[in-house]
Amino acid sequence: MKLSEIGEFGLIDRFSPHFTRGLPENVHGIGDDCAIIPLNKKESQLITTDMLIEESHFLINKISPEDLGYKSLAVNLSDIAAMGGIPVSAFLSIGIPTEIEVEWLDRFFAGINELARQTNVFLLGGDTTQSKKHLIINIVVLGKIETSHIKYRSGAVPGDIVCLTGSVGDSGGGLQIILEDKQLDQEAKLLIEAHHRPRPHIEEGRWLGKSKHVHAMMDVSDGIDSDLCRIMEQSECGVHVQLDKLPVSPQLTAVCSHYGWNRYELAAAGGEDYCLVCTIDAPHSEEVTREFEKQFGHTLYPIGHITGQAQQLIYYLHQEQMTLTKHGFNHFA
Amino acid sequence: MKLSEIGEFGLIDRFSPHFTRGLPENVHGIGDDCAIIPLNKKESQLITTDMLIEESHFLINKISPEDLGYKSLAVNLSDIAAMGGIPVSAFLSIGIPTEIEVEWLDRFFAGINELARQTNVFLLGGDTTQSKKHLIINIVVLGKIETSHIKYRSGAVPGDIVCLTGSVGDSGGGLQIILEDKQLDQEAKLLIEAHHRPRPHIEEGRWLGKSKHVHAMMDVSDGIDSDLCRIMEQSECGVHVQLDKLPVSPQLTAVCSHYGWNRYELAAAGGEDYCLVCTIDAPHSEEVTREFEKQFGHTLYPIGHITGQAQQLIYYLHQEQMTLTKHGFNHFA
Repeated sequence: MKLSEIGEFGLIDRFSPHFTRGLPENVHGIGDDCAIIPLNKKESQLITTDMLIEESHFLINKISPEDLGYKSLAVNLSDIAAMGGIPVSAFLSIGIPTEIEVEWLDRFFAGINELARQTNVFLLGGDTTQSKKHLIINIVVLGKIETSHIKYRSGAVPGDIVCLTGSVGDSGGGLQIILEDKQLDQEAKLLIEAHHRPRPHIEEGRWLGKSKHVHAMMDVSDGIDSDLCRIMEQSECGVHVQLDKLPVSPQLTAVCSHYGWNRYELAAAGGEDYCLVCTIDAPHSEEVTREFEKQFGHTLYPIGHITGQAQQLIYYLHQEQMTLTKHGFNHFA
Repeated sequence: MKLSEIGEFGLIDRFSPHFTRGLPENVHGIGDDCAIIPLNKKESQLITTDMLIEESHFLINKISPEDLGYKSLAVNLSDIAAMGGIPVSAFLSIGIPTEIEVEWLDRFFAGINELARQTNVFLLGGDTTQSKKHLIINIVVLGKIETSHIKYRSGAVPGDIVCLTGSVGDSGGGLQIILEDKQLDQEAKLLIEAHHRPRPHIEEGRWLGKSKHVHAMMDVSDGIDSDLCRIMEQSECGVHVQLDKLPVSPQLTAVCSHYGWNRYELAAAGGEDYCLVCTIDAPHSEEVTREFEKQFGHTLYPIGHITGQAQQLIYYLHQEQMTLTKHGFNHFA
């Protein structure tokens, strides 16, 4: 049977028994942004890893080595943020094609180090090896967290308000500009920067992790259209999303209007946003969003709510129900 | 500058400042088989990672999926053994070309799980992604150890006896049989098995880790000719190796004699042996080797001793000094 017949999530389902067999109590393997291992009575270790392969995840002539280094670490730090944790150390495995120049690697490391220093993460080790064709990057990040602050994908409760810690769609818009070789005006450059240098929302994740009113959390890596399905699966719930409430940047609005792109599609399914999505106990959601804004000086955006209808992700645009297909948003049929 | 101009170890030297900048006390990054992070007053965590890339590290039509899964985990467990530690959990990142069949992956996982169960290691998570061309495997293993039992590469002292926990050269011989498509008689099959299913010497590593007479330890992954250089660098010492003392299996002797291969070259530089090399305080070395044999029912082989001549790795064959060049062993010029 070909992989394409079962897809990435089918593959994960098929192999998940290998990852859960006989786990000790309190050890948590797949199903969330990080694995969790208790360290002592109060604290747990978080572990996450991401593999980036040239041509599958990036085009080496379309991203600077600094940005690639920065992004390779950022996507892992975002997984630690998604649980509410603090990243501590990173390990880099790199498969290097022989034609790569040493100076390129110097700049790649500079990009990793820039973000590592900003976030107090130590690059502790890894593996350096030769690759025949593609550049391959695998980063592992270890983090820590007070066990009582861990936020799982499984914590959402019907009635919870679904919130985003940042705008969505910029990264997907940036990728589309790169792939279609569009002209690089100021707005387009901002979108590409969002795609190449996503900021992991570590401080926001810490803060939300400490709030008992936050029930579920994850990072937005595949786009909310896909990532909310993960919360629905783990929490056995549904979600209503108000498309007109999705936080969309002025630059995305400008670029979409210029090229006739649908900003709601990019916001919901563009992917690689790396902000956080969380669900908040409804009676306390206004209090939490107000305190969040006071703390961070930017908004925690309510975009919808959790429902009891298992696996039903429904979009609304100004009261009208919509569905997202591969051809974009349609009126609900 | 091309990578080939500085080589793998030149690259590691160039990038090591990125891995050591501002590390907290007691945290130990590159330079050993694992990174070390203190967990509490008594214990430390060990972290190791290895990346295996199709065509660079294995040929997919020359190794069964079960063996590839087994070996991918084994090489990481060997790094934990090399410090004296206990492996605890593993994380697998895998980049999968679309033409790989699901059944192939089932067998690959079966191989990983076979060794994971044997060694009480939990496969806890990872990343599954698509690769355009080659199969890519990155495994991270976390382990633990009593901090006082950690063995470093830097502990060797002039006069120490250098010992091996197993025979060397079988794996290199197996690789040569595969690459030259030699006939698969019984001996050849044993060598190939040594190449495909290396046994990580975890129990031996634990036992040696607990002995205060063992000063330095590492696993033999590149072959002792290269790996002893790592001990010499870290311990600022030299090594004398008695070639005729290298433990060589009957099957390697038979195959080498059949094809006219030099068994000393394979034993010293074949690589991927995954036994352990350690240095033992000379006055206690006989006691340690005797107790080792009592404990494990196989020999701890003394193969030479540590000298004060920094970076001098000298081989002797029956009292005669030899050098190993890329053309093989030569009389010392």
